[in-house]
Order: sequence, then C-alpha cells, then structure tokens
Amino acid sequence: MSPTPREQCAHLARQLHAALAAAGSTLAAAESLTGGLLALTLTEAPGASEVFRGSVTAYATDVKADVLNVDRALLDARGPVDARVAEQMAEGVRGLMGATYGLATTGVAGPSPQDGRDPGTVYIAFAAADHSCSTRIDADGDRHEVQRAAVLRALVMVRDHLRPREPHET
Amino acid sequence: MSPTPREQCAHLARQLHAALAAAGSTLAAAESLTGGLLALTLTEAPGASEVFRGSVTAYATDVKADVLNVDRALLDARGPVDARVAEQMAEGVRGLMGATYGLATTGVAGPSPQDGRDPGTVYIAFAAADHSCSTRIDADGDRHEVQRAAVLRALVMVRDHLRPREPHET
Repeated sequence: MSPTPREQCAHLARQLHAALAAAGSTLAAAESLTGGLLALTLTEAPGASEVFRGSVTAYATDVKADVLNVDRALLDARGPVDARVAEQMAEGVRGLMGATYGLATTGVAGPSPQDGRDPGTVYIAFAAADHSCSTRIDADGDRHEVQRAAVLRALVMVRDHLRPREPHET
Repeated sequence: MSPTPREQCAHLARQLHAALAAAGSTLAAAESLTGGLLALTLTEAPGASEVFRGSVTAYATDVKADVLNVDRALLDARGPVDARVAEQMAEGVRGLMGATYGLATTGVAGPSPQDGRDPGTVYIAFAAADHSCSTRIDADGDRHEVQRAAVLRALVMVRDHLRPREPHET
C-alpha cells in the first residue's frame, strides 16, 4: 500500500530536519491557505526544536504586508494568491525569524473561489539568502486535500534545495 | 457517545467565530507547544476569514522575544514555560497582528521534560486591550493529547471572555 500524503509529509519532514541539522541550517514558514498545517507538520517531526525557528500564519491579507513585509502595491495589483507574493512571504518570514531558509504557501483551499482564483490554485515559495523561487500547483480534492498537497509540495521544495548536487552539476 | 476533544474544539471554534463576528472583534494566536494546531483549529471553522487575523508559532525561545516582544529577562529567569511568558505572548501577537484579542499557548507537549518542566505542563493566556490573564493546566496523555487539551482550554478561555455577563455580574 502506498503511503498517504500525511505519511509522506511526516517522512519528508523527518528527512528535512536531519538534513538541516547536518548543515547547521534553520527553517521558518509563512502560511496562508494551509492555516498552520505546515508548522504542525514540521513541529511533529523529531528534531524540530533544533532546526525549526517558527512560523507566521498570515490569514488576513494585510498581515502579509504588516508582519511579513509583502509589498502592498503588489498585493493590491495581484491579490494574495500570486507567485511573487509567495516569494515575498518566504523572504519576509526568513528575515523575521532569523532563519537560513524561508518557506511559504498562499492559495485557495476552497471550496469556493477566492480573490478571483479557483480552489486548488496554490503557490509555494522558498527563500535563501541569495535567491527565492516559487512554483504553482493546481491541487484536486477538498479543502483538506488541497492543504495537504500544498504542504507536501512545500516540503519537497526544501528537500530539492538541500539535496547534494550531482558531481556534474557542481 | 460524547464528542471527542477534536470535535469539541471544532464546535467551540465555530461558536467563537460567530461571537467574534457579532461583536466586530478579531483574534490572533501565539503558539509554542501546540505548533500550529491552534491556528489550524481556528482556520478550519467556517467564518475564520472574518475574525481570525493570523498566528505566530514561536518555536524557538528567542523568537518569543524577537517577534512577540516577550521580555528577555523574564525568559532568562523563568524559562519559556511560564504564566507571565504566556501572557506576554498573547499581548505581543495581539499588537503584532492588530487584533482585538490575543491568545497564547506555551508548555511541554512531551514525551520528555523540557526547560525543567514536566510533560503536560501548559500555560494558556488571553489578552485584551485592558487586561491579560493566564491559566495553567496539567494535561495527561501523549504529545497529541497534550496539544489537543491545550487548544481546547485556549478556546474555552476566549469563549468565557466573550460570554455575556449574567445580570447580577454587571
């Protein structure tokens, strides 16, 4: 039987904590549609206290600007469900928490559309000192399935960043 | 069959959102041992977007000082599992998020003791503009049961604050 998304998340979080600890690095998270599930997944894995600084759930749009320093003009122009907003959330929480890396989720869990975007539209972003990147997923399923898919993709994004480069890549 | 703690939490969160919306009030949360579960419980209930501003999971002790403005001398003297630390977390997140009320949890989920305190030792705090209060619980059970008990007690604390006074109390 293949692992459930929840089991996959737990396994990945455990891997991440080991990799972060080995590198002496830390992580902080900024969440919107996942509403605390990303933080909960990260804190449930053994070793969290060594590598996880904390998180901000920026549920109200203006909290994204006030607490995470997301550009207000960008929020006004693009709305909160946007690739660059996700990147700025990751950058913001990284600075706020003094972490090596920032990770962020913003999107529409559903069941109704929100801010003009369809349920399942999610942007995930990762920020390091010298770069930020984001990816979009279009998740199927109910609210919980969309949230779980967002958390899983966020953890994969960190894992892919931490994975040692193949020799020919260096 | 009596409701599970999870069902009790979902029911309470729904009640709180209705009461907060009726009063035109908002809520923000600061979490430590609950690691995101308080925010997740609050965001899962219908009506969250109207009344829930957001949350900070202050997992690292210095994040409690840097982000939530908890007094460093207090943290040094008492450690993070303390009634006044909980109150300052609630006050801090209330200010940070611009909410009417702040709510906070700090404690030891277990299974091991932490900061010299036994697993199950939890402080919950509530902050309004003009006062803060806190309560201690000694929760039984595993890590998840302790976290769930903390979330339940936190929601009860807000409900008790929002409940209309009996005529003889006013």
